Amino acid sequence: MTEPLIIWTYDWVPAGKSGPRGHVRDIRLRWACEEAGLPYEVRSVPFDNRGPEHFLRQPFGQVPVLQENGITLFESGACLLYLARKSEKLMPRTPRGEAETLEWTIAALNSIEMVTVPWWFIGLSNNQDNPLQGWVVQRLQHLEAILTQREWLAAGQFSVADILMSDVLRVPKVMTAGDFPALRSYIDRACARPAFKAAYDAQMAHFAAHERA
Amino acid sequence: MTEPLIIWTYDWVPAGKSGPRGHVRDIRLRWACEEAGLPYEVRSVPFDNRGPEHFLRQPFGQVPVLQENGITLFESGACLLYLARKSEKLMPRTPRGEAETLEWTIAALNSIEMVTVPWWFIGLSNNQDNPLQGWVVQRLQHLEAILTQREWLAAGQFSVADILMSDVLRVPKVMTAGDFPALRSYIDRACARPAFKAAYDAQMAHFAAHERA
Repeated sequence: MTEPLIIWTYDWVPAGKSGPRGHVRDIRLRWACEEAGLPYEVRSVPFDNRGPEHFLRQPFGQVPVLQENGITLFESGACLLYLARKSEKLMPRTPRGEAETLEWTIAALNSIEMVTVPWWFIGLSNNQDNPLQGWVVQRLQHLEAILTQREWLAAGQFSVADILMSDVLRVPKVMTAGDFPALRSYIDRACARPAFKAAYDAQMAHFAAHERA
Repeated sequence: MTEPLIIWTYDWVPAGKSGPRGHVRDIRLRWACEEAGLPYEVRSVPFDNRGPEHFLRQPFGQVPVLQENGITLFESGACLLYLARKSEKLMPRTPRGEAETLEWTIAALNSIEMVTVPWWFIGLSNNQDNPLQGWVVQRLQHLEAILTQREWLAAGQFSVADILMSDVLRVPKVMTAGDFPALRSYIDRACARPAFKAAYDAQMAHFAAHERA
């Protein structure tokens, strides 16, 4: 069976400076599909009223959800690791290459995003004395040391780990935490990829198509 | 080759009420090995002076690190998913069972621990007005709804997802965020497993063996 993959996202999200448009996590899955040439369709769940049917697919009421042939997956990181098995463009096929892709994918989720997201969230209502400031700077400094020495995180090639890490880092304000030239170039490198641009444009078009009056 | 797995942890960590002893993340790997009957050896890195050699293994200077036949992995979540492929006791072998184990492992890292760890960290220095209070309660309520209906998270059996989620939830104070009877029973169920007890005792003995005067 070669049915297309199905990616679920919201029908609409707010736009604007700190609105999530352009950053909703379905973009991670779209990006992976674009890199690997995997056909996909997008379906929508109402942003305002997600309802019990959506909670059956995603117990925390979020997006994305990935569906394929009776398999339903939530958590963007899990979806990326699932998609990674479909193409060497997303993860090399050697045991060592798979291990490196796996560890850096999890590092993006649990060593970086675990700190940047709460730091960002607290910063929305508190511009001074963010209690997570020291922690976020320390984590980004460790990552800066790594990315000063390499182009991509895992196995000497672009992989789903880079989709995840660059998407975590490009969130507005994260780079204001300190001076991180290697991280800035890494974000630029990742976002210059045609597959990122295609995914980004597709997400923006999707939300614009459901624009509210 | 059947060389034992190597798990790296610290030589020593502080004990006491909020000390990490009993909660250092090597316990997640020990627990998985005990569940599956996988032989493992433990090696130590100095807690106080981790040195450049350790940063080569773990770019954020943390533990655990897992080694096997030339493969070196950091991030406890990555190590658990790597170990999961070795035994049906850690992850069922069906595509659906693998997908469910993967999504719940990532959910433990990125939907629960991403909120509980910063919430806990902020609470150390601020007992009132924790800016993450509403968020942690909401996430735990969603998880409570799931665990009211099932014994284990994924695929109708105990898996690495439960090792991770119960280890995230049993951190002191997390259950003081609200009233979560299903989560409390889940933690009790997980910690009553002989493999958890073996892993916990082994970690405590390891740190006690390097006790400081």
